[in-house]
Amino acid sequence: MTELKNDRFLKALLREPVDRTPIWMMRQAGRYLPEYRASRATAGSFMDLCMNADFACEVTMQPLERYPLDAAILFSDILTIPDAMDLGLYFETGEGPKFKKVVRTEADVEALPVVNTARDLSYVTKAVSTIRRELNGRVPLIGFSGSPWTLATYMVEGGSSKDFRHVKAMMYGQPEVMHQMLHKLALSVIDYLNGQIKAGAQAVQIFDTWGGVLSHSAYQEFSLKYMQQIVDGLIREHEGRRVPVILFTKGAGQWLESMANTGCDALGIDWTTDIGGARSRVGDKVALQGNMDPSVLYAKPERIREEVGNILASYGKGTGQIFNLGHGIHQFADPEHAKAFIEAVVELSPQYHK
Amino acid sequence: MTELKNDRFLKALLREPVDRTPIWMMRQAGRYLPEYRASRATAGSFMDLCMNADFACEVTMQPLERYPLDAAILFSDILTIPDAMDLGLYFETGEGPKFKKVVRTEADVEALPVVNTARDLSYVTKAVSTIRRELNGRVPLIGFSGSPWTLATYMVEGGSSKDFRHVKAMMYGQPEVMHQMLHKLALSVIDYLNGQIKAGAQAVQIFDTWGGVLSHSAYQEFSLKYMQQIVDGLIREHEGRRVPVILFTKGAGQWLESMANTGCDALGIDWTTDIGGARSRVGDKVALQGNMDPSVLYAKPERIREEVGNILASYGKGTGQIFNLGHGIHQFADPEHAKAFIEAVVELSPQYHK
Repeated sequence: MTELKNDRFLKALLREPVDRTPIWMMRQAGRYLPEYRASRATAGSFMDLCMNADFACEVTMQPLERYPLDAAILFSDILTIPDAMDLGLYFETGEGPKFKKVVRTEADVEALPVVNTARDLSYVTKAVSTIRRELNGRVPLIGFSGSPWTLATYMVEGGSSKDFRHVKAMMYGQPEVMHQMLHKLALSVIDYLNGQIKAGAQAVQIFDTWGGVLSHSAYQEFSLKYMQQIVDGLIREHEGRRVPVILFTKGAGQWLESMANTGCDALGIDWTTDIGGARSRVGDKVALQGNMDPSVLYAKPERIREEVGNILASYGKGTGQIFNLGHGIHQFADPEHAKAFIEAVVELSPQYHK
Repeated sequence: MTELKNDRFLKALLREPVDRTPIWMMRQAGRYLPEYRASRATAGSFMDLCMNADFACEVTMQPLERYPLDAAILFSDILTIPDAMDLGLYFETGEGPKFKKVVRTEADVEALPVVNTARDLSYVTKAVSTIRRELNGRVPLIGFSGSPWTLATYMVEGGSSKDFRHVKAMMYGQPEVMHQMLHKLALSVIDYLNGQIKAGAQAVQIFDTWGGVLSHSAYQEFSLKYMQQIVDGLIREHEGRRVPVILFTKGAGQWLESMANTGCDALGIDWTTDIGGARSRVGDKVALQGNMDPSVLYAKPERIREEVGNILASYGKGTGQIFNLGHGIHQFADPEHAKAFIEAVVELSPQYHK
């Protein structure tokens, strides 16, 4: 494999010294970019983009052409696993993801297969190897998956939800059925992420978008437990280098200590958590990735720069920080404001690494 | 005024000794009750129910007839203030509240009046005095309002929102305009809650449903600051008794210390926070109200009882706890399960007060 020219991101994830704070943005290849919208118009649907390795590679590279980012992230969706379980993922304009089949009963759960990545999701591993080749060592490539709990919410609800009625009814009413489902999902995620690592992903992130809707104790039992199982089952070293694992539960600011105890390398945090406070809580156990509110990009560049400065100052000196937004960049964000954001991190962060 | 026969709720709010943990449920007069749906069908729209003191009184009393609750809460909506500001509140089936006019510019904010409760919201104070008369000292009556920040989200977005795009754009892009709006709202809420207190509300709760979508620092500046202003401006003693103030920000588990410092009497907490952990953080500054996930009511009565036991044990011995759900009861909750929930609190809590 080609030598990695910029390993700032991988180093910071392992809390090794860096020259400045690395930065990437969740959903950095997305609708806010006109070139993405053009590719999407050519490819067809969102899933057509994901399933074609050349298109997925094309859009993955787009933000790197515009901005001095320190990582690329595989262009894909968090719901590829339930789609591979034959639930029929589809997207309706302005409505978010939906599934043709829902999983609501014990029989539904028993019928669910564990995903075999090589057989069912080769379009993803093909995209990973294509992107890796195209990157040619420029920056590392991040692979990812949804967390078991988050995948389960979509599978049980049949799509997005406001109150998580059905999935919580299953969790509180038939906990053993819920556990069976989450176990199958954890095994699938392990196989899926290891497939991505073998294909060339140099770090992986688990997106637990909906862990934060759970109670303190339910989070431990129904979300974190299965992320722990995944962390334990992943390939942690590949191509002679450690493959860092990032756990990101949105809304988990109160549970960082238990997340840090899973043996992952880094935690993604959202903007509700003060990053300096988080650092003092997790100590040197993990690196921290985040955490500017994506809505700050609606402000003027001076205000964006000020917010970047605040977050850098809150984290303080030393390595272990990866700058990011606290969630995916909004589709209505101005690409010029994203540029101001990224440049502010590049310009303001070196003083914290001297 | 008639003597109060059950003051367990008011005493616990002030951390005075009680015989058992008091309980009420947010949205206890609501769609999960068949008798509520019948009243609603007779009255017409949701706002017709709110605006007619007799109907509002009728539905307020309904849960008290079914369950051994320790408080009644005024039947009304959190959006009466922006409606009184002439923004045209309306409800579309299954869509949540909407406004005919939105507030997006400096001129829009300048045009907003401060609400005069006696003139603009007398239907609310009339409902309060009607309910108070009907209660006849049975349990205390809670008045309430939305928080300035939460009201502002609806006024700027024109209804519910998933990403709070417009209100956050205003907050980060034109902070001085946002502050002007929030100040007008705070003055309106003070006048409104004082009007409810003078009409007979014996405790008040400020619902900050959307404070939890803010960053740590934005929460302090744009939400908590204005709740502080309200706490400072409220009538704190009436009819020879302290009128306790409860602050409830959904998703604020990380910010409880600063909320407790406002001089309020109690904090409402949602289910993501462990109540025992919260107690050790706020000490004896405030009482704590909450915090079972409303979705636990989808489980069987034994499981509901177990969860009640867990929450009581987590809080531990002594006064200062008010049992509640962590958010409003869901419309699909089974009234028999609500009964099991309330009875579990009545039966399991006395041992913590010996």
